[in-house]
Amino acid sequence: MEQRVSLITLGVSDLGRARAFYAALGWHSDTDPDMGVVFFQTGGSVLALWGRGELAADSGVEDGGGWGGVTPAYNARSREEVDAVLEEARAAGARIAREGGETFWGGYSGVFVDPDGHPWEVAHNPHWTVRADGSIELPKS
Amino acid sequence: MEQRVSLITLGVSDLGRARAFYAALGWHSDTDPDMGVVFFQTGGSVLALWGRGELAADSGVEDGGGWGGVTPAYNARSREEVDAVLEEARAAGARIAREGGETFWGGYSGVFVDPDGHPWEVAHNPHWTVRADGSIELPKS
Repeated sequence: MEQRVSLITLGVSDLGRARAFYAALGWHSDTDPDMGVVFFQTGGSVLALWGRGELAADSGVEDGGGWGGVTPAYNARSREEVDAVLEEARAAGARIAREGGETFWGGYSGVFVDPDGHPWEVAHNPHWTVRADGSIELPKS
Repeated sequence: MEQRVSLITLGVSDLGRARAFYAALGWHSDTDPDMGVVFFQTGGSVLALWGRGELAADSGVEDGGGWGGVTPAYNARSREEVDAVLEEARAAGARIAREGGETFWGGYSGVFVDPDGHPWEVAHNPHWTVRADGSIELPKS
């Protein structure tokens, strides 16, 4: 198995609402609105939105009903961008679970929660490189 | 907010066991084993393993205890690679929730579930391009 993640699918209860939320953050999808799924090109990977019940059945798992131990993160280029993204998410209807602030690991982050309850950490990590194209490069040990 | 996902963190109950599972799939991390977190470079993004309780607290959410509506996927280059990855995961101790087979969307996929209950879809999607570096390119509409 190559060391990569191709796609993350977020299960949602209202596909149109979920798509509109991510569109309000400035994201664009070419997926036909009649398709029953939405795909966003996210750098070299893809973020999908799909009905949560369909995703649970397709994934062969029972739905615990809440959060299930997976949190995506967006690494910003500065502390100011963290705060700006949290404001943008708030304006789009997200709940802010944690306002931007210093973290125990020497960075700065906050958390927004999308309309389906999926948290996103928004972080500035001074130890990691965010390249011009948005990709992340871990430090070499 | 730029259209990208920098990091996905999987909450785990035993960090050493989780790291060993992904290592058995051929993944390598430079993270110091004493750090309390593990980072894998996955193309231009990062996959992290961290204690599930710590992740829930950091994410500002209640833990539903099971699966929570997020499934990552690995897009293989062929149907044969789908089956090979599922076998590799089985040998590493994963539960196979769905054996490789034809899908309703014209592809071929199966699902393995890691030792912490996180499902991974392993798919061959003939409509999507997997580039040499492993990145995915959605078709243009």
